[in-house]
Parts: sequence; C-alpha cells; structure tokens
Amino acid sequence: MNVTIIHGPNLNMLGKREPDVYGETSLDAINTMLEQEAATLGITLRVFQSNVEGELVTAIQEAGDWADVIIMNPAAYTHTSVALRDAVSAVGVPTIEVHLSNIHARETFRHHSHVAPVAVGQIAGFGPESYRLALHAAKGLGT
Amino acid sequence: MNVTIIHGPNLNMLGKREPDVYGETSLDAINTMLEQEAATLGITLRVFQSNVEGELVTAIQEAGDWADVIIMNPAAYTHTSVALRDAVSAVGVPTIEVHLSNIHARETFRHHSHVAPVAVGQIAGFGPESYRLALHAAKGLGT
Amino acid sequence: MNVTIIHGPNLNMLGKREPDVYGETSLDAINTMLEQEAATLGITLRVFQSNVEGELVTAIQEAGDWADVIIMNPAAYTHTSVALRDAVSAVGVPTIEVHLSNIHARETFRHHSHVAPVAVGQIAGFGPESYRLALHAAKGLGT
Amino acid sequence: MNVTIIHGPNLNMLGKREPDVYGETSLDAINTMLEQEAATLGITLRVFQSNVEGELVTAIQEAGDWADVIIMNPAAYTHTSVALRDAVSAVGVPTIEVHLSNIHARETFRHHSHVAPVAVGQIAGFGPESYRLALHAAKGLGT
Amino acid sequence: MNVTIIHGPNLNMLGKREPDVYGETSLDAINTMLEQEAATLGITLRVFQSNVEGELVTAIQEAGDWADVIIMNPAAYTHTSVALRDAVSAVGVPTIEVHLSNIHARETFRHHSHVAPVAVGQIAGFGPESYRLALHAAKGLGT
Amino acid sequence: MNVTIIHGPNLNMLGKREPDVYGETSLDAINTMLEQEAATLGITLRVFQSNVEGELVTAIQEAGDWADVIIMNPAAYTHTSVALRDAVSAVGVPTIEVHLSNIHARETFRHHSHVAPVAVGQIAGFGPESYRLALHAAKGLGT
Amino acid sequence: MNVTIIHGPNLNMLGKREPDVYGETSLDAINTMLEQEAATLGITLRVFQSNVEGELVTAIQEAGDWADVIIMNPAAYTHTSVALRDAVSAVGVPTIEVHLSNIHARETFRHHSHVAPVAVGQIAGFGPESYRLALHAAKGLGT
Amino acid sequence: MNVTIIHGPNLNMLGKREPDVYGETSLDAINTMLEQEAATLGITLRVFQSNVEGELVTAIQEAGDWADVIIMNPAAYTHTSVALRDAVSAVGVPTIEVHLSNIHARETFRHHSHVAPVAVGQIAGFGPESYRLALHAAKGLGT
Amino acid sequence: MNVTIIHGPNLNMLGKREPDVYGETSLDAINTMLEQEAATLGITLRVFQSNVEGELVTAIQEAGDWADVIIMNPAAYTHTSVALRDAVSAVGVPTIEVHLSNIHARETFRHHSHVAPVAVGQIAGFGPESYRLALHAAKGLGT
Amino acid sequence: MNVTIIHGPNLNMLGKREPDVYGETSLDAINTMLEQEAATLGITLRVFQSNVEGELVTAIQEAGDWADVIIMNPAAYTHTSVALRDAVSAVGVPTIEVHLSNIHARETFRHHSHVAPVAVGQIAGFGPESYRLALHAAKGLGT
Amino acid sequence: MNVTIIHGPNLNMLGKREPDVYGETSLDAINTMLEQEAATLGITLRVFQSNVEGELVTAIQEAGDWADVIIMNPAAYTHTSVALRDAVSAVGVPTIEVHLSNIHARETFRHHSHVAPVAVGQIAGFGPESYRLALHAAKGLGT
Amino acid sequence: MNVTIIHGPNLNMLGKREPDVYGETSLDAINTMLEQEAATLGITLRVFQSNVEGELVTAIQEAGDWADVIIMNPAAYTHTSVALRDAVSAVGVPTIEVHLSNIHARETFRHHSHVAPVAVGQIAGFGPESYRLALHAAKGLGT
Repeated sequence: MNVTIIHGPNLNMLGKREPDVYGETSLDAINTMLEQEAATLGITLRVFQSNVEGELVTAIQEAGDWADVIIMNPAAYTHTSVALRDAVSAVGVPTIEVHLSNIHARETFRHHSHVAPVAVGQIAGFGPESYRLALHAAKGLGT
Repeated sequence: MNVTIIHGPNLNMLGKREPDVYGETSLDAINTMLEQEAATLGITLRVFQSNVEGELVTAIQEAGDWADVIIMNPAAYTHTSVALRDAVSAVGVPTIEVHLSNIHARETFRHHSHVAPVAVGQIAGFGPESYRLALHAAKGLGT
Repeated sequence: MNVTIIHGPNLNMLGKREPDVYGETSLDAINTMLEQEAATLGITLRVFQSNVEGELVTAIQEAGDWADVIIMNPAAYTHTSVALRDAVSAVGVPTIEVHLSNIHARETFRHHSHVAPVAVGQIAGFGPESYRLALHAAKGLGT
Repeated sequence: MNVTIIHGPNLNMLGKREPDVYGETSLDAINTMLEQEAATLGITLRVFQSNVEGELVTAIQEAGDWADVIIMNPAAYTHTSVALRDAVSAVGVPTIEVHLSNIHARETFRHHSHVAPVAVGQIAGFGPESYRLALHAAKGLGT
Repeated sequence: MNVTIIHGPNLNMLGKREPDVYGETSLDAINTMLEQEAATLGITLRVFQSNVEGELVTAIQEAGDWADVIIMNPAAYTHTSVALRDAVSAVGVPTIEVHLSNIHARETFRHHSHVAPVAVGQIAGFGPESYRLALHAAKGLGT
Repeated sequence: MNVTIIHGPNLNMLGKREPDVYGETSLDAINTMLEQEAATLGITLRVFQSNVEGELVTAIQEAGDWADVIIMNPAAYTHTSVALRDAVSAVGVPTIEVHLSNIHARETFRHHSHVAPVAVGQIAGFGPESYRLALHAAKGLGT
Repeated sequence: MNVTIIHGPNLNMLGKREPDVYGETSLDAINTMLEQEAATLGITLRVFQSNVEGELVTAIQEAGDWADVIIMNPAAYTHTSVALRDAVSAVGVPTIEVHLSNIHARETFRHHSHVAPVAVGQIAGFGPESYRLALHAAKGLGT
Repeated sequence: MNVTIIHGPNLNMLGKREPDVYGETSLDAINTMLEQEAATLGITLRVFQSNVEGELVTAIQEAGDWADVIIMNPAAYTHTSVALRDAVSAVGVPTIEVHLSNIHARETFRHHSHVAPVAVGQIAGFGPESYRLALHAAKGLGT
Repeated sequence: MNVTIIHGPNLNMLGKREPDVYGETSLDAINTMLEQEAATLGITLRVFQSNVEGELVTAIQEAGDWADVIIMNPAAYTHTSVALRDAVSAVGVPTIEVHLSNIHARETFRHHSHVAPVAVGQIAGFGPESYRLALHAAKGLGT
Repeated sequence: MNVTIIHGPNLNMLGKREPDVYGETSLDAINTMLEQEAATLGITLRVFQSNVEGELVTAIQEAGDWADVIIMNPAAYTHTSVALRDAVSAVGVPTIEVHLSNIHARETFRHHSHVAPVAVGQIAGFGPESYRLALHAAKGLGT
Repeated sequence: MNVTIIHGPNLNMLGKREPDVYGETSLDAINTMLEQEAATLGITLRVFQSNVEGELVTAIQEAGDWADVIIMNPAAYTHTSVALRDAVSAVGVPTIEVHLSNIHARETFRHHSHVAPVAVGQIAGFGPESYRLALHAAKGLGT
Repeated sequence: MNVTIIHGPNLNMLGKREPDVYGETSLDAINTMLEQEAATLGITLRVFQSNVEGELVTAIQEAGDWADVIIMNPAAYTHTSVALRDAVSAVGVPTIEVHLSNIHARETFRHHSHVAPVAVGQIAGFGPESYRLALHAAKGLGT
C-alpha cells in the first residue's frame, strides 16, 4: 500500500512553533515515527511539505499517479484553499484530513474546512498521534 | 485504563439505517469489536446508548466517577445539544468525539458540533473504524 | 393500512393551552375523532404522545416495524430536533408532518422545520382538522 | 359554498414539466378531478391560471367579491411576491396555500413563503392530492 | 409642468382594503383630490394604475416622453422589483417615491425599497396626504 | 397649532458642509423660511438644534408638554440612537421624521432609522423643502 | 404562596462542576438555603431537577396546577429548547428565569434565551444568590 | 437549428437608456445584427421582448415546442424571478443566459441570478456582442 | 457600603412614559423607595440620572472613587453604548445591570447589552422591584 | 492583436479530472484549438498555466507589457484570490474571465468571483468553447 | 502647521484604566509628550478631551476653522458614532485616526470604525506612541 | 536593531499601478528611502518582496532567526491568508502591519485583516510614509 503524506504551511516550524498549541515534536521526528509505523503496517510512504499552496496542489496531483491513500494536513490552507479541494477531487485518491490541534475548538474561522467535503474523513486534536491514527485509518481503507 | 463509550440517538438503528450513509454493521457488532480491541489494549469498557439527550447527560456525569477517557458519538445531538457540552465540561474527563460519517461533508447544519470545543479531538468519516481509532487515541491520551 | 400518529411536547396540554392559538379541543378528543375517521378509511391507528424528544425518536423507530405511514406533529421539536429527522430517515416510512397552527405565520423561529426535508409533505394551520386531512393524505399514499 | 382556485405560473405546464418533481397529471386533469370532488362536497368552483403575477393579484381581488375560500398555489411567486400577499390581506377571504411538492424539502429559497403569513394554512407535498385535501380543508372552514 | 402619477398593485382596492392600515379613501377619491391640487399648482396630471409589474415598467417608460416628474407608489413592488428601478434609471425623469403607510414602521421586509436609490426622495406615512405632499415636492423640483 | 422642530448633529454646519450632498442653504436660512411658512399655516414654531444626543432627548421630552407635532431631523443619530426613539415613544406626540438627503439612496448604514418605527411618517430627499413639506404634513395631522 | 423551583440539566453537578464558573455550593445546599428563605417569606416550595428536557416540560405542566410562580434555571436548555418556552406559555404561570452565571458575559450562544420572551423577568450572574433574589421577586409578584 | 431569443424588461429602451452602462445600440439594431449572424450560421431566429415577467414565462414555454436553444437576457428579472427559472426547467431546452453589462461588476444584488442554476452557461459584459457570442455558443451546443 | 445608582436616558420620564411598559411609578418615587431600602441594609446611596451618554460615562468614572458597587440602568444606551462598557471596565467597580422591563422579551435590538459582558449580573423585568433586588444583590456582593 | 491566456490551478489535469464536470479534452488539446482559432482571427497568443497563485499574479503583470487582452480562467482562485484581482487592476489590460463549467450552477462558494469586478466580462459553462468564445470577444474588444 | 488633537471618552482615565490594555501613562503625560514633539516639528497643538459624543462633534467643527490636520482617538465612539464621521466629512480637514490598542486584535465589535472611511489613515496598537507617530504623519501631510 | 521588511503581492508594480490609489513612487524608491531612514535610526534592514503567499510565509519564518521586528505589508493576502497569520504566530517576532492605502476606507472585503490579530499594530493610509512611520514604531518597540 502506497501513502503520500502532505504537510501544509508552517508545519516545517513544528517544535519551534507555539508549543502550547502544537506540541514540542519536530516535523522530522513525526516523519520518522510515521516511517516506522508505516513499516509495521506494510505501507510505503512518501512525504512532502511546502508553504506554497500551488506546490501542495501539484503534490496532490502527483500523488494521483502513485498513492492508494493521501494523508494531508492542509494547516492554514484548510480554511482558505479551494484549489486543494479541487486537486483532491481531480485525482480521485481517497484522502484523509489530519490536524494536530482540534480545529473545532479554536477560532471560528478554523472550524470550516474547504477540503473536508471531498475527504474520506477527518482526524483532529491528537497532536502527532493524529497522523499515526490516520495511517491506521488508511490501512483500513485499503482492506 | 477505563473508557466509557456513549452512543447517541438512532445509533441503535445501525445496520438497519441508511446503509449507504452509515454502513451495514449493527451497533452490537461494533460493541463486540470494541470489546475485543479494548482487551488487546488493556482497556476496560463501559458502553451506553440512549435516544434521550438527558440520559446521555447523566451517562457523562456517571462516567466522571469512573472513566479515564470518554468516547462519545453524540449523533444528532452533536449539532443541537449544549447540555452534552456542559456535561463534558462538568466532569472534566478527556472526551473524544466520534462520527461514523464525515459530518463536514454532509449538510451544512451537520458541520457544527456543540461538543467539539470541549473535546480533546474529533474522528469522523471512517464508519465503525472511527470508534476503533478513538480507542487507540484514548490509549495514547493515557500514556 | 397501519398508521402511527405521534404527538410531540405540550400537545397533552391541548384544550388547556393558549386556546386562541391552538383551539379548545383536548388531545383525547382529537384522538377519538381520528379513531373514527380511521375506521371509515380502513386504517388501523396507533397513537403516541411524549414530552421527551428521545421517546419520540424511539416511537418513530418502533413505527418502522409496523406502520405504513407515520403522521407526526413534532410541535416544539420541529424547530430544534435533528434527532427526529434522523429517526424518520432511518425507518424509511413515509411521514406526514402536521401542525395545528400555521407555523409559517408565527414567529420566525417556527418557520423552519428540521423534519420537513425528510417528510412526504406538511399540513399546517387547520387545527385538529390538520390531523384529519393528514389521515386522508396517508390513505392517498397507500393507494 | 364558493371556492376560487388560483394556479400560479408554469402550472399550465403540469404533466409536461419535470414529472419526477411534479407528477404526470395535467392541469386540466386536476381541475376535472377538483370539479368532481367539489360537487360531492357541495362546493361551487371557479378556476384561474396565469403566468402573470399581476393577473393573479387581480384574480384574488375578484375572488373577494364571490368566494368564501380561496385555494391558491402561487408556485414560483410564493417565494418572490409581496403583491400576492397584499392582495390576500386586502380581500380578507380565508386563503389556503397549496403546493404540489414539499417546498420545505427543496432548495432553501423555496422554504420561505410570502403568502403564508396571511394564509389560513398550508398543504404541501402530496401532488394533485394537495388540492383535494385543500378542498376538504375549505369545506371545514365553512362549517 | 407635467406629472405622471403611477399607482402600484392593490392600490385599486383602497378604501375596501385594510382600512386600519391604508385609510378609507378610495383611489378615485385620491385621484380627484390630486387633480384639484394639481390644477391649483399649474400641473397637468396623468394617472395610471396596474397590478402588473411589467405594465408599470411600461408606464414609466412612457412617462419618459412626457413627464417632468414621476410620482410613484410602487406598493408591494417597492420591495421586490428591480425592473421598476431600472425603468426609472432608464427614463431619467426625476421620480418621487410615495407610500400611504410608514413602511419603515411595518414588517422588516417593507423597510427596503429597490426604487429608493434611483428616486429623488421618499414620502411615507401620511395616507393620501403623502401624494399631495409629493405633488408639492414635484412643483419644487420644477422650480 | 404648536410644532417643535428639532435639528440633529452637524446640521449647524449646513451651507458649509458638503454642499453637493446637503445643498448651500444655512440652517438659519432654513429656520427663517420655516417661520414664514408656519405663519401662513397658523403654526407656532419652536426650533432646537444640538450635537448632543442626550440634549435632543431632553428637547423631545420638553416638546411633550407643548407641541402638537414634532418635526425632527435626527441626522446621524437616526441610525444609531435608541434613546431618541424611546423619547418619542415616551412623549406620545406625533413625530415626523425629516431628512435633507434621500437616506435610502446613500450608504447602507443610512437606510435604517431607529426613529421611523415610532414616527408618523418620513420625508427624505428634498433638501430644505423636506422641512417645508413636513410642516404641511403636520398641518394635515392637526386637521 | 406556592413556588415551584425547576433546575435544568447538569445543575445536579453543582459544587463538583467548574467551580470557577458556577461556585462551590452544591445543589442540595442551595435548595436548603431556599427552603429557609421561603419559610421566612411565607412561601411553600416544590423543587425539581432533571437532565431530561421533556421531564422539565412535564414539571412545568404540573406546576401549572399548583404554583403561583415558577422559578426556573433552564441551564443549557435555555439556549436550545422551544419546548420549555411552549410549556411556560401553556401553563400561564408567571415564570422567573434564573442563571447562576451572567450568561450575557459568556459565549455568544449563551446570550439568547428561548424562555425569556415568555418569562416575567431574568436574574443572572449572582451565583446561588440569583435564586434567593428570584424568591424575593416571586414574593413581589404575589403582592 | 432553431433559436428563440428572449429580451427582458427595459431592453426595449436600449440606446435611449443609460448609454454609459448599456451602450448606444438600439434593440432593433441588435436584432438585425443577430438575424444576419444567424443566417451565416444556419440558424432560424425567433425574437421576443416583454416587460412583463409572466409573458416572458409564456415565451419560454412556447419556445419549448420549437427551439433547439433559448438565448435569454432576463435583465432585471435575472435577480428576482423564480418563475423564469421554473419555466426554463419545465421546457428542458438548453438555455444560454446573456447580459449586456458585467453583472458581477455592478451592485451586489445583481451578482445573483435565479436563472443561472438551470442555464447551460452565462455570457456577460460584452454589450451587444454578448448576444452574438451566445449565438455562436448555441451553434456549438447543436453540434 | 457605598452604592451609586445610575439611571439612563428617558428614565426621568417614568410614570409619564408608556405606563403599560414601564409602570406608573415616577423616578422620584423609586429613588425614595431605594433610599429607604438602603437604610435598612446599611448602604449609603448616591443617585444620578442623565439623558447624555457622556455624562453617564463621567458618573461611572466618579463612582470609581467612592462606590463599592454600581447599580446601573443604562436604558436605551444598553444597546448602543460601548462608552458605558469601557467606563465600567475602567473603574473596576462591580456593576449590576438593571432593567425595568424584560428586555429579552421585547424587540430583538433590545436583547443585546453592551454593558452585560463587563457587569457582574443582570436583573430585568420586575419594574421598580428590579432596582430593589439589585440593592440586595449589591449587599450580597459586599459580604 | 496580442492575447495572453492564463490557466489557473488544476487545469493541467483537464481530461483526467472529473470528466463529467469538465469534459474529456486535455489542456494541450484546448491550447492547440485556441492557437488555430487565433491564427484565423489574426491574434498572437501566449499561454501560461500554473497551480501557484503568485505565479499567476506575475503572469498577469508580465502580460501587462505585451498583451492587448488577457483571457483568464482563474479556476479555484476565482473564489479566493484578491491578489489576482489586484494584478488585473494594476496592469490595466482588458481581461476576460472564462470558466469551463457554469460556476453559478454549482456550489454556492463558486458563485462569487473576486476577479469579476475588474474584468470586462465573464463567459462560463461552455467547456473548451468558453475559451474560443472569449477569443472572439477579445477580437471584438480590439475593434 | 496647526493640529487639533481630540481624545474620546474614557481617555481621561488613562493610567488608572486597565493598564494591561492601555498602558500606565496618564493623558496629561501623553499631552505633555505631544506638546514637546510638536514643538520640534514646528506644529502648534490644541488638545481636547470629552466623554460626550456631541461635544466631540463640536470640537471637530471648531477645528475646521483653525486646524490643518485633526488627530483623533474616538475611543469607544469609533464603533458607534456616525455623528463623528459626519463631522469629519463636514469640516473637510484631513483627519488621522489613532488608537492606543490594536483594535483589530480585540473583540469583533472593535474592528469596525465609523470614522475610518472619511479619515486619511489609521494608526493603532502602539500605545502613546500611536499619537506621536500620528504627529509625524500629520507633518508629512503638510509637506 | 534588525528589521525585516516584507512586501506582499503586486507591490513590485508600485508606481506603475493605479497611481490614484497607491501613489507614484516605485518600490525601489521606497526601499531606498527606508534604507536611509533606517541608517539614521541605527536599524539594519532586510527587504523581501514576493507575489507568492508561501514564499512570504517562508520569509517570515526566516526573519524569525534574525529580526527584532518584522514590518509587513501583506497587500492582497491581508484579507485572504491564514498562513501568513500562522507564520507570524509561529516566529513570535513583533510584527507591524503596514498599508499604503487606508484599507478601512475601501471595499468592505479589505476591512478585515487576517494578520492584525497577531500583529502589534497597524499603520494604514499614508502611502510610502506608512512604512517610514512603521520604522519609527519598530524603533519604539525596541526601546
């Protein structure tokens, strides 16, 4: 099973950024943890991060040729990007939306996700665990 | 680790109800699956279902004396019940919100959750798997 | 033909309650009138009233195993209950929504019905006659 | 008892028009059915159809001099015409609002009726049966 | 000075219609009063009434070739007609908006006028006097 | 007949202020014109201007002991003052709302008047003529 | 004088629940305090608490046969229950709305009360003192 | 190929009307240009204009029996008419919505089109060229 | 204990003003009653009334140097004054908001209070009794 | 005549992407068709596609030095990008907005275009034909 | 160069008032600092403070006869006063809006300024420095 | 003191772009002016411009390692970018928001800033002077 993991803007700052909101684990540490978990699940991972909305669009398009499932944390673009939504629709690969924080418990403008209506499901609020749960969910989709 | 699982209104109809939306698994089958998963995770489960908002409130209150984590699928009350929210606040037990369907991909009135702002996190869209992932998330919270 | 009639909250107060809005006929008198009308139409009736939203949900679920048509006056829950809506969807029995008063001529918050989108139709504003007309409509659905 | 039946815009297309929404019965067939039903109820009918809002206004005004009850399906003008509402207020004849489809289950802009606040009641969702039920309701108002 | 007076829908019912809201004077009586007042002011009047929005549009267009000022009571179409607004813009004749009742003291949907943004001014709430004041205002515009 | 004329904030700037919007006549010139017109109508005037909302409130209260009609141009306070509205309600003297410009043709926030729902009527858009028309309207109220 | 005191959902948790918001006094302690105060005022009390909306509806209905005044803290149902509002209307007993916290200083969704439009008045923000003040207010209503 | 062209209210004023917004070409000139263009495309035209919404509805209905494509500029009714929308749905003829001006660059109330959701497409902002482009688009639909 | 009582605009009209809404007691009578009640509670009163928002602001500022509690009925300014809110925040004296009528049962624009979010609590709907209850509440705050 | 054609995000997926919405023609095929059409019209084309909003902004800026007309399909950025709007304003080159699908017939969030208020016009709903029509419209602008 | 500085309501409380929001400097200290800075810039200052909206209106009017630039901190009236806005328009003196705190980072109701649309610019969030920067900006306007 | 200046999209067009809105100074000229001013204030500058939202995000992140203050003109992204906001939060460097034009005096959609809630303050409306004032404000923050 192939899974592409896509990290949105500012996630490269994890660990340095507002640790009371996002925790103290760096993105590298999360990716390492995910590689290990993926190995145990028989999943091959590709990981991508960008601060540029359009590069995330392209990453989704490219995942369309390889991945069985996309796991995406669109971060800030969750709330502002129709382009990510359209990319997910275009590739037709089942996509799991992931958030470190519980976006529904934060500012009102973070409650709405442009991506959600075209995603399989959403996992939010468990910190890096959100990704790990998504990997398990991806496995389930592949069954 | 003690976990109380609370199923909201109409979930007793699972399997019979709109299988294209909610799948074909009965609530009993889900509970059995969860008992097994809990056993492997060293979690003791209590399970409760009611169609009555106030009985769900009471169930949350009672979980406050026993559970380390609450996993709740408030179903239709997600969108209309401040009382469930206040109950979760009152007991102070970490609560994971679960939905079978991806509520953010359905009618607009299902996008808002009264419970979310006081929950740890939300898992939505994976059918019965949503509960199983929540059990893993609960385990993670206990670590 | 089997028809379940479900009366929502405060309808047990009919006759005592705001007669300028709801008329002077008691709920018992309405039920008796409906039994007589049903007899002439070859319809078998079951009648249920509750002030508890969740008990109305359960009544709808139980009607799912017996009734050909549900006639429901959700009263105050019309405007606040997603659970009743979901119950109607779940059982898949054609449901006729009935109101004694013309809810569209009253306060704005009474104009919206959570149940209407899953009901066959709505009859509002004719007092106890609304129920009798619904019985005829039910007969028509069975044809 | 005198009843004026007023059909709004596009109802002359019934039978030809979107049969999955409005059924396959033509307006003539409905009128014939209503004439028969009226005869059995001791009601004299006048029937009017127009696509022009202002002609419907005039029809209501003229009904004011003859009819005991108006049965009106304002169709598209339901949602856009204050003039029809004002005409109903002006003539002071009890008016029953009728819709073939359940307008509350369709697009949001069809949920609001300008006419409803000055109507006695509303019957929606039963196809041509909506009119027949309205005739019975009119009979009840005359009692 | 030439003035066209345009009466909107249902104003032909004046005197018969809701006298507590609109007074007891008939439209003929108002027109007679206006003819007399116009004579004293050296104004030539043309008067038009229709229940049909499009005929009112045409009346405005025709006034464009003759009138120095238009006095219009768009009645119900005040709140729903962009066509009347566009007609007033098209002819470029100064237009005075008149209402018998104080529309700003009635239901919220009557507070907004589509015509007002292209009118010179608005006089509302003085019953038939509203028209007479408008005639004086028209005289003032011609000075 | 006694009439109190109340001018709201910034009207003391008339003539100096944005002549393209409000014209070039000073407030003194308007008052003089109104005194003359009042004399011909057999009306005794009192005139008051203030920039202070609360002083306008007091002026309305004092008019309550003397005036048969109040003519008020609340200017900017039209859109923000509930206190002026409550004062008009409190004194129970028929009040005519006047505006130099057509407030319904300006910025959206100027379309709403807090005073209108308790006023007899509104005259807007005729410059100083708005006041003179109001004086005639006042005369009509006294008839 | 007879007074029924009705406590809404989660108020049975008082003392245990978020003491920084609701204080540290238990519901039993409040009831005892109220019994004492009632005795000094010559008031006979009945006290009821439930987490179930429909049971609160029934409690209001039953108070209709006995109480001169109802004192109700609808808690979370304040903001979501039309059924409680309708029950208060139905029984026609003067009802005083009470809140421990100042709901108008909390989240926006707590600012609106469905019950308030049919209540005599509202007392909010004084902790258990809110109830005691309501008892005095009830006494005043009985005078 | 048969194409019915339907011009809405006030378009008979073209050339006379606000030339800075709508250009200086008369409707006759536009129709002549369209006839010529249609001839070169092998299209037979019928052209209709009315200021009356209901007559436009009827024109659409009649086009249903003859036209392969309808080209309609609903003008002011674009923003207020559900009846036109329903007529287009009823006849099931592919309909192209045309506007002289770019409605999306004008007042907010002109941004919404009731007709658009049932039209094939929309061409706006090119003056009389909008119609000519629509004729080419119609040709394309027929291919 | 020192308490400053601040009466907002139009309250000087009490007794003369809309007695069906505000009762028949004059402000002087209320003040006398409050002086007596204060004496029995060991409270020293200062009382202030103004129609001018800014003078009420200043009164709050001055109370900051003397009062232990402020009791304020902001009347119309409740709904429009951020300045009063800021003054209450600035002085840091516990403030009780009082209303004669139940503002939550009146027009929608009276439901919102700018002052409430910085007040201790709100008492509304009991006529002059509202003030007396507030005096008791103030006493309770001082305990 | 020089025309720059700018394709927004995900348009590089055309043909692969949701063919029921966007058709089966690839972007290359569309560009080839446009080159041919341009040749017959005496237009020189430059074509640009990017998924990155900022690169589209730069493309517009560069078109400002060369193009007589810009034809842009902003795709998803239509609804979210103020930057594209500002770029169009900045360069001052007449811009035609193009959409393959009829955006006004799709989800509500697709009805609004940030670009439209600064565009000459909009063509939507004709698939690749939308571009070809735009080329003709561009030609017309150059005349 | 002449500059009038206008301080709105509650600014006389600076230093005493919520120091965590507004800092610890008194208004006198700010004025002294501004006098010194003005001297170095060759600016003559007049300074005015009032809690009364109407007095601030008058101060703006008076500045119209003397000042080259107005620097105004409307404080709470920023969000509620159309009268201040109209005064600024009336005098036609370039006006700089100043705020101690960053109003756009506080409660939503503080984000909107009635004055901003008629001001040259806005400086917010720098405490007393906001005024000093405004003085420099004023100097720049005079250049 | 180190200050990073970040210019958003289309600011590279300054001087060429809509000079009536943004002035005639080029971005290079502004940067030169800022370098000179910075030198006199003992500030070291880094300057960055991009049209790409994500590159601006990265620039903020990089400023986090070097700058004491960020001065940012997010231009069009002010109103649409949550990513910029999150970047500012992430780096924790005091940020001053700058705009050439007074965004609060322009179209409504420009009144809201996503960045403002995490910025120290905002300076808008003074053209290039806005930047120079921000530099002084930055100096003040460093004191």
